[in-house]
Amino acid sequence: MSIKVVFLGTGGSIPTLKRGLPAVLVERWGEQIMFDCGEGVQRQMMIIRGGFHKKIKIFITHMHGDHVLGLPGVMQTMAMLNREKKLEIYGPLGITRFLECVRETLQFGLTFPVEIHEVEESGVVCEEAEYAVEAVRSNHVGSSFCYAFIEKPRPGRFSIKKALALGIPEGPLWSRLQHGQKVKFPSGEEVRPEQVLGSARRGRKIVYTGDTKPFRSLAKFATDADLLIHEATLDDELAERAREDGHSTPSQAATAAKKAKVKQLVLTHISARYEDAAILVKQARRLFRNTQAAEDFMIIELPLPDD
Amino acid sequence: MSIKVVFLGTGGSIPTLKRGLPAVLVERWGEQIMFDCGEGVQRQMMIIRGGFHKKIKIFITHMHGDHVLGLPGVMQTMAMLNREKKLEIYGPLGITRFLECVRETLQFGLTFPVEIHEVEESGVVCEEAEYAVEAVRSNHVGSSFCYAFIEKPRPGRFSIKKALALGIPEGPLWSRLQHGQKVKFPSGEEVRPEQVLGSARRGRKIVYTGDTKPFRSLAKFATDADLLIHEATLDDELAERAREDGHSTPSQAATAAKKAKVKQLVLTHISARYEDAAILVKQARRLFRNTQAAEDFMIIELPLPDD
Repeated sequence: MSIKVVFLGTGGSIPTLKRGLPAVLVERWGEQIMFDCGEGVQRQMMIIRGGFHKKIKIFITHMHGDHVLGLPGVMQTMAMLNREKKLEIYGPLGITRFLECVRETLQFGLTFPVEIHEVEESGVVCEEAEYAVEAVRSNHVGSSFCYAFIEKPRPGRFSIKKALALGIPEGPLWSRLQHGQKVKFPSGEEVRPEQVLGSARRGRKIVYTGDTKPFRSLAKFATDADLLIHEATLDDELAERAREDGHSTPSQAATAAKKAKVKQLVLTHISARYEDAAILVKQARRLFRNTQAAEDFMIIELPLPDD
Repeated sequence: MSIKVVFLGTGGSIPTLKRGLPAVLVERWGEQIMFDCGEGVQRQMMIIRGGFHKKIKIFITHMHGDHVLGLPGVMQTMAMLNREKKLEIYGPLGITRFLECVRETLQFGLTFPVEIHEVEESGVVCEEAEYAVEAVRSNHVGSSFCYAFIEKPRPGRFSIKKALALGIPEGPLWSRLQHGQKVKFPSGEEVRPEQVLGSARRGRKIVYTGDTKPFRSLAKFATDADLLIHEATLDDELAERAREDGHSTPSQAATAAKKAKVKQLVLTHISARYEDAAILVKQARRLFRNTQAAEDFMIIELPLPDD
């Protein structure tokens, strides 16, 4: 099954007619992982028919309004629609306080449990059976993090030929071997999974930087990612201004992509000053060919790797 | 000069593809008066090219997220654009606390002064040379207010014929009389403004209810309004549900319009359940003919009365 990466908002700190405030939605097998949640995201969700009842985890990179002010509205709409499933929110220190004070001053009730996890340092912040989300401290203003969504490797491909050669008939025994369990014949003879399975197949990896200027550990953190979503707020000519504001240029994003040997790079958090992001893509492609600029509602599909 | 009333968001508690969250912008002679400020309003402002540097006062009817969550984003964008003019915000008790805690947890600086006025009871909340804004306690949930924008009467029409007949030559003396000042001839003889001016001309009046179920004092409060913008969240068939939630139906809005003898009625805060608001308009028109449903970006012009 493909993972769908939907760009809900691709603007910089100020929205434009074409670009909403930052949010990226990763859809995987009916579950949603959202990175950042700027003002207006609930409406962007409606436009893509994202739904408000699905299993969802939201990861906030840093506590600036343009990355977090959509959260209360999303929660309020979920409550209006009588959501029952738990909502999980991850973000830097301060996210609990922000949500508490908004809920307290606006007095809205919720119909579902909310689990808030404050991210205090780099490392795995969320571990599930099939994937993990890791954070690394980035270099914006105050406390900020990049996140990586990392699928765990899947078991190797099952060889029907080998199974039949070993005398195992089609049926529940095949399933046991596929799930990594040994099978025992009445004769006492055993067949181990590795006798019928190929080598483990790699999972997919998506890295979302949030706002940041370049920082050393990103290359390692993003190594071999299928997709690096990197901010490129200002073009190369404005590198000095970008540095002052804690932002990156296309060349800096491309350098990170190259060092990390990622498969593709998408530039986002595009400043309102660029009516057309072509200049940013051009600058990045000099260093990293497989680059494109995000647009609102753009979708990137990452098929299941079959190696 | 006409007053332009621009409907920035006409949805109920949940936005839809066609309806943003509540906000109405009154533009009068380069100044803006906004009623409510739901999530996404800054982007709606951009669509109508409303600008972020104008003189503006924002009036919040009640402290529910869908009416107030656009405020921090508007303020943040104003700051990013280096606004210098003061921003005035009026709203029920709690508005100061809400804005303080958001600014504190999201740490955004402002480039302009903000004046917050907590509205505690019915009465005039803002008085300017040419208009006033009055509040009346409405009947929603918790503390809620309706607002009326009321232009002061203008001086009567200046009669060139009468001025010339009295021997006053065209020039600065005309202007003095037009501005309500007496004029004295060297002979000692006086001309008073009322000798050359017709009777005072009425100002315009716009009433915005915010969320409310029917309440007795609205009829008086809205008397003779040029425009009554009344919520009609649910249709007549759902009157019981509307009552429970502190909302109104089209017939209730129309009844208020009729009692108050307003000139026109616009229904807004339309629930997401109505793809087409025609049913609401139909129900209201049975009781008050000059009714229409608000749509996002609809503009109503109120010309300068010339009576």
